[in-house]
Amino acid sequence: MNGQKPDPGLPIAVFDSGVGGLTVLHELLVSLPSEDYLYLGDTATFPYGTKSREELRGRVAEIATFLCERGAKLLIIACNSATAAARDVAAQLAAEAGIETLSVIGPEAEIAAAITTNGRVGLLATPATVAAGAYHQALEGQGRALEVTEVAAADLAPMIQRGSQFDEGVIETARSYCRPLREADVDTVILGCTHYPLVAPMLQRILGRDVRLVTAGHAVAAAAQRVLEGQGLGTPGGDEGDYRFLCTADVESFQELGTRFLQMPLGPVEHVEVPTLTA
Amino acid sequence: MNGQKPDPGLPIAVFDSGVGGLTVLHELLVSLPSEDYLYLGDTATFPYGTKSREELRGRVAEIATFLCERGAKLLIIACNSATAAARDVAAQLAAEAGIETLSVIGPEAEIAAAITTNGRVGLLATPATVAAGAYHQALEGQGRALEVTEVAAADLAPMIQRGSQFDEGVIETARSYCRPLREADVDTVILGCTHYPLVAPMLQRILGRDVRLVTAGHAVAAAAQRVLEGQGLGTPGGDEGDYRFLCTADVESFQELGTRFLQMPLGPVEHVEVPTLTA
Repeated sequence: MNGQKPDPGLPIAVFDSGVGGLTVLHELLVSLPSEDYLYLGDTATFPYGTKSREELRGRVAEIATFLCERGAKLLIIACNSATAAARDVAAQLAAEAGIETLSVIGPEAEIAAAITTNGRVGLLATPATVAAGAYHQALEGQGRALEVTEVAAADLAPMIQRGSQFDEGVIETARSYCRPLREADVDTVILGCTHYPLVAPMLQRILGRDVRLVTAGHAVAAAAQRVLEGQGLGTPGGDEGDYRFLCTADVESFQELGTRFLQMPLGPVEHVEVPTLTA
Repeated sequence: MNGQKPDPGLPIAVFDSGVGGLTVLHELLVSLPSEDYLYLGDTATFPYGTKSREELRGRVAEIATFLCERGAKLLIIACNSATAAARDVAAQLAAEAGIETLSVIGPEAEIAAAITTNGRVGLLATPATVAAGAYHQALEGQGRALEVTEVAAADLAPMIQRGSQFDEGVIETARSYCRPLREADVDTVILGCTHYPLVAPMLQRILGRDVRLVTAGHAVAAAAQRVLEGQGLGTPGGDEGDYRFLCTADVESFQELGTRFLQMPLGPVEHVEVPTLTA
């Protein structure tokens, strides 16, 4: 931190490689309605999951620099791959501009550890996220002995991405991923992919109503509120704030796909080029 | 009641004039996942809201008779118009077959009265529902002094019905309906139309996170659980039950529209003719 405090009138900046992070924005819009938001979908670089760690660290540095220069009072990384590979890069750059950074993974782990009664926590995530081990590590860091059951759900996010989440076939797929979680008798399940909230009711039905689902959206919104209140940067309640969208590739497809993920009216989307940083 | 108890293995029957009641079924599927369900959309008679009281009483008698003969352990009227005009008719016929009846309106009023802190409750409903006064009456019957602010939202359900709930225009419309509720400082709002849960996050954002939204789905699911447990008719937890669909008009349009309202995979829909009763 450089000691300076951001202008409380600035928006909260949220970014992801695509539209998945819009489920996080959805919860922010509902939980902190008076704030302004600026969402950037780095669709030109989508998907982040297949990029090397070095590539991702470079790209996240570019995005963070761009958003901080554009003006933000809080930076939120709403993407698992970017968080696992480059959270520190974004946090460092934002801190130099006096801006706090939040990301997925940590807040979900904290909530899951706090609410589980039997200490058995499930993780449903993409194979890349499970392999990266960031959730496992975050859960281990909670200072509580937890039995963690991880399921690498290869097909679920692609099904949701292509709009098949209400096709009948998705139930059998979801059921097979939930089976190990049920067998492990988990009472809390982290939905470790920003696509999964779109099928949360189906997962709740399969897992049973007594299992608590933890989404990145809920966890990050709670953390954002704490940070803003702690820094005296919150916008007083009253009317709804603005929310605006940037993307780095085709605007129309972002708009169409994005509405389904935001589950609210999306509004205009602006195309932006994020400048390349030269080392 | 004729003293006989229904077979606990029978499904819970749910009916509505169309697809709106599917938001009630959605909550039942999540809250009571082990039960079997049979949903009937009386799409041939849609919309109920424009029918005379006598017409509706006749039609509801036919539907209730049909569903009880088909076999059910609980009958749920997931439709405001049918509840206001003919709840007693359905309940009488079902009772003759030993089947309990639940409907919308009453359960929402009960929950709203129980959870409001400041005693100020809002109702957002269609003009026909507000004019019928059934929610007002149900709230008055809760044995607690409540200040009720009713808003007749003419445009919201039609917007949702035609799929415009994520168009930008809907925000301004919703905002104008929420204005009197905000001015009245309500802390609890009944969503008095089964279409409204599809825009619940937007309404929550407009009303502010401290306002509690009460949906028919949540209220009816809680009531259904009480009734089934009270009668020893509940299905033990474990696997998910079946859910099946009947409609009285075109199957394909029910399926297409229905998926959007159920917010889960819908599965096959069967066309049925509901026999006319001769007096």
